[in-house]
Amino acid sequence: MKVLLLAAGRSKRMKPIEDKNFLNFVGKPLIQHQLELLHESGLNDVVVVGGAHNMEKIKDLGAALGVNVEVVEQEDLEMGMAGAVLSAKGLLNGPVIIFSSNDVVEVSALKAIMAAEGADSYLLGYKVSEYFPGGYLEVSDGFVSNIVEKPGAGNEPSDLVNLVVHRHENPAALIAALEAVKSENDDKYEVALAAMMKDGVKFKAVEYSGVWQPIKFPWHILPVFKYFFEKAAKGVAKGAKVAEGAVINGDVIIEDGAKIFDGAVINGPCYIGKNAVIATNSLVRESNVGEGCVIGFSTEVARSYLGSDVWTHSNYIGDSVIENNVSFGAGTVTGNLRLDEANVLIDGCDSGSNKFGAVIGSNVRVGVNTSLMPGVRVGGGSFIGAGIVVAQDIPDKSFVRGSWELKISENKQDVGENRDEFKKKL
Amino acid sequence: MKVLLLAAGRSKRMKPIEDKNFLNFVGKPLIQHQLELLHESGLNDVVVVGGAHNMEKIKDLGAALGVNVEVVEQEDLEMGMAGAVLSAKGLLNGPVIIFSSNDVVEVSALKAIMAAEGADSYLLGYKVSEYFPGGYLEVSDGFVSNIVEKPGAGNEPSDLVNLVVHRHENPAALIAALEAVKSENDDKYEVALAAMMKDGVKFKAVEYSGVWQPIKFPWHILPVFKYFFEKAAKGVAKGAKVAEGAVINGDVIIEDGAKIFDGAVINGPCYIGKNAVIATNSLVRESNVGEGCVIGFSTEVARSYLGSDVWTHSNYIGDSVIENNVSFGAGTVTGNLRLDEANVLIDGCDSGSNKFGAVIGSNVRVGVNTSLMPGVRVGGGSFIGAGIVVAQDIPDKSFVRGSWELKISENKQDVGENRDEFKKKL
Amino acid sequence: MKVLLLAAGRSKRMKPIEDKNFLNFVGKPLIQHQLELLHESGLNDVVVVGGAHNMEKIKDLGAALGVNVEVVEQEDLEMGMAGAVLSAKGLLNGPVIIFSSNDVVEVSALKAIMAAEGADSYLLGYKVSEYFPGGYLEVSDGFVSNIVEKPGAGNEPSDLVNLVVHRHENPAALIAALEAVKSENDDKYEVALAAMMKDGVKFKAVEYSGVWQPIKFPWHILPVFKYFFEKAAKGVAKGAKVAEGAVINGDVIIEDGAKIFDGAVINGPCYIGKNAVIATNSLVRESNVGEGCVIGFSTEVARSYLGSDVWTHSNYIGDSVIENNVSFGAGTVTGNLRLDEANVLIDGCDSGSNKFGAVIGSNVRVGVNTSLMPGVRVGGGSFIGAGIVVAQDIPDKSFVRGSWELKISENKQDVGENRDEFKKKL
Repeated sequence: MKVLLLAAGRSKRMKPIEDKNFLNFVGKPLIQHQLELLHESGLNDVVVVGGAHNMEKIKDLGAALGVNVEVVEQEDLEMGMAGAVLSAKGLLNGPVIIFSSNDVVEVSALKAIMAAEGADSYLLGYKVSEYFPGGYLEVSDGFVSNIVEKPGAGNEPSDLVNLVVHRHENPAALIAALEAVKSENDDKYEVALAAMMKDGVKFKAVEYSGVWQPIKFPWHILPVFKYFFEKAAKGVAKGAKVAEGAVINGDVIIEDGAKIFDGAVINGPCYIGKNAVIATNSLVRESNVGEGCVIGFSTEVARSYLGSDVWTHSNYIGDSVIENNVSFGAGTVTGNLRLDEANVLIDGCDSGSNKFGAVIGSNVRVGVNTSLMPGVRVGGGSFIGAGIVVAQDIPDKSFVRGSWELKISENKQDVGENRDEFKKKL
Repeated sequence: MKVLLLAAGRSKRMKPIEDKNFLNFVGKPLIQHQLELLHESGLNDVVVVGGAHNMEKIKDLGAALGVNVEVVEQEDLEMGMAGAVLSAKGLLNGPVIIFSSNDVVEVSALKAIMAAEGADSYLLGYKVSEYFPGGYLEVSDGFVSNIVEKPGAGNEPSDLVNLVVHRHENPAALIAALEAVKSENDDKYEVALAAMMKDGVKFKAVEYSGVWQPIKFPWHILPVFKYFFEKAAKGVAKGAKVAEGAVINGDVIIEDGAKIFDGAVINGPCYIGKNAVIATNSLVRESNVGEGCVIGFSTEVARSYLGSDVWTHSNYIGDSVIENNVSFGAGTVTGNLRLDEANVLIDGCDSGSNKFGAVIGSNVRVGVNTSLMPGVRVGGGSFIGAGIVVAQDIPDKSFVRGSWELKISENKQDVGENRDEFKKKL
Repeated sequence: MKVLLLAAGRSKRMKPIEDKNFLNFVGKPLIQHQLELLHESGLNDVVVVGGAHNMEKIKDLGAALGVNVEVVEQEDLEMGMAGAVLSAKGLLNGPVIIFSSNDVVEVSALKAIMAAEGADSYLLGYKVSEYFPGGYLEVSDGFVSNIVEKPGAGNEPSDLVNLVVHRHENPAALIAALEAVKSENDDKYEVALAAMMKDGVKFKAVEYSGVWQPIKFPWHILPVFKYFFEKAAKGVAKGAKVAEGAVINGDVIIEDGAKIFDGAVINGPCYIGKNAVIATNSLVRESNVGEGCVIGFSTEVARSYLGSDVWTHSNYIGDSVIENNVSFGAGTVTGNLRLDEANVLIDGCDSGSNKFGAVIGSNVRVGVNTSLMPGVRVGGGSFIGAGIVVAQDIPDKSFVRGSWELKISENKQDVGENRDEFKKKL
């Protein structure tokens, strides 16, 4: 069976993360984790729908796994899931599983959808015990009769939420239905499914109650890291150097070439990528620290995702998401708790937590002693000056400075030259 | 013999400390230390004059000690010591020792006043070797003839300073004298004593040269802590967890449930309260850290009093007094030394030291990278924003923010993507 | 043979360093290192040309070495090298080597100039393999015929750059030539040499390819430290105290009375002067830390020169030069890398490196949480306030403050009193 893996979207909700498919969790991009999942499920024939921005990077990922990957481009990224399926139209000549790279699930999800019988199409239904604002599968006489979007608590037609792990025995029918939809909204795919149901195509709900972690908002990134970390083999690579005076607590993965200096503490779960440096007296906990990162002296990184080549130095990076090639001047801090201890908002959305720091795009430089307020997003390629408080989102490629004046007058006071008295109060 | 323990005052000089009786030294409120002192002195019948704000909390403190505590309310707190004595009027039917909770003294002070003979009233006279700005006992023919307030150096009538450890064999005479004073000033008690002396009531000075530490100004709090620490049993509770990589130097008291993490250093004398956390690579020295405090990563706490539930995080807290339930964002600092290294002033008063930090009331939240100038007081319930310099006292329940504008322009510069060159200068 | 050691200059290019002769490298002033060099070369008869500012300090430096030091004053410091030689006119009655204290060279340089034969004067020619912007020795028929100042790459008349290690067999001829020059420019000495060459005085170039490190700009100070460190005897003095929990990596010199606390890390090459304190959890690397310095808790000092009595405290001092008796408030940082990662400029001159911090004169006090931008110079005796960004040079004896206003309003929000929920995310 073929898989249509949807990986084109550049989600606005994830801004300034450029392409979540290439967030690196425990050293591998999300999209590669998804290909491995398919391979483990016995699915080795994959059509990936990408975009101009990531097709090149995707196309070689299957080779080492023995997965046959074909990449097609979705030209109009605004057309959503329907656009993605139609982009691959020419390649869908038999049964297909449509799977979104946005959803992290277990092998059992794919096995279940593969094993289902007795219908034309199958939709994975995630079993919920409390209300979730998604699409619910309405089931009548054993078949799905409708998908009800965000019905509101108490109005759910079932306890099954639609996940994009769909199997269509006859994709031609799906394509015809998609082409027949007039709407230009991004729910075109769901409208097409509804039309098919009306026309008598049989849809079955396939119940699933394993792991499901969508990756739509920045605050989804840490739990995804934890999931992939949990699955990965733990340990310290032979080529890593851990100083005698360093302390490692709990489960960690420390890759080849990484160096952990004296006085550094790593509290797992932590991933430390290739050639990363965890410098003297720093602390890393519950974090993904990518390849080539330098966690400098006296820095704390807590519950954060750091891509590759992130440089810190006497910083506090808490509950944050930092893309690749970013550096922070000494004393710069990501505030991760509001004074009123209310939930942090990102772009106006409630993150669901009172602890959340910053989301920072690639190639950003931040000066010394700067304060990033909880939930702030800094666009890629921006320079952020020293000694400022950033309490607003910063667009890509911005240059941000403070505005102040120094008052300089003559200093008429002398200083004592004898420091001995002070030494008593060291 | 009964004791009248004066514990109603809410000193303006201690602002924003709400009630110094409930400053917790080595885990117990000041007022409880005073009750224990009385008990050790053999005085187990105590009338405490409290205020509406603390009566409830006081009334149960004696039970465990076997001290009979009655609490009376002083309604008009402006009426000072005279008002306090008059509040307890109905309970003073025999010899009484009047003792102020503001003065920390040794058992020998109480024993001396109890043992004195040959007069109607007895006043504890603290023997000084240099001038102290207090009330001096003028003694003629073996009896106190006058109390001279702040006579000025060189004009002292004796070397005995009046401490509020007074014994009156006949409190009725004192009450009558107090009721006869017309003045509404807060020196009514002293005026009444003077009138009694004139009327022929015999006052004897009882010399005392043990420990005396008044607790009137914020800078008195650290020496009081050190005194109570010295007296207390030292050691690490069995239920405390001290990581292998933590270092403890000197005398400490570490209570049950406390956790000391790797790389943390505690330099005694230090008290670490129940369930407190001294986190990775932090430093605590010569400080009282109350129950439930969290001294976060890379924080230094030096010569400071912290109440309960104070949370720090990459901070420097030096020579400061912090009430309960206060948190500091990362990078926030209490400046404790002026640039000119002159003595720090608090509310215009000379603290007597060139090292003094901040005094912070309960339920305060301070943002990240903020600087509190030496001697600043922050009122209870205030929120202090990020990245500012607080160089003035802040009233209770204030919301304090900086005012600035960011200049945001297009960043026309690119960053190098190769970090290898930088790694050479790690 | 006599040596005329030129040590009067107070270079503007080194501002705010007052007198580079008294920069202390591995515990000894530069001028003393130079006297030792002369002594090792067998030159024990030295006339030092000083200025009013340093004559007193220079005159006793030779005694312990067995070097006979006479000091003469150069009154007009604007008159450069010619002025210096003329100041010593009365003492130059035989063969002399003129040597500038600005140039750090090896014994072999002096031995070579001493051993040269067959001419009236000898100039040390430093052999270069690529263009250096100095004066090149043009050699014809075995003798120097001209000194060509900064000819530009490709136009060099030889591969020998003129170093001020000059020998004159007949100083009277030099003095006469100097006195004959009309020019008041600071190249009077070079003009006189050219006139002597024209007049038939024979100059020979003496090739030298050992160590040469000029000390003209602040960025020359660290390499000079490294050179003197390399030559000095390494080790930890018996009277130094190194805590068990401290870590020392690489070569270090730790002097008597120095204390290294728990969790401190010293990565050599490092010099730690007498009675200096390297406090808990701090990091010092590749630096010269002078006598009486206190490197406080959680400070990093990297690739920096610190004079005596420099006090730090939770700071980052990187690639900086700090004179004597300077203190930094907690959280203050020397930025040492521009956002655009271009080379740092000091007073408009390219330092040749993208890592350079601040140059700070003596007796400076810096408040807490202040940011000094890369390449900034702070004049001696200045006070720099808290929480500011200093992005410009600061004149001597300045008082620098920020200008801002706090917005204070009523805080209508309450804080939760229960911190238990937070402890889960410690």
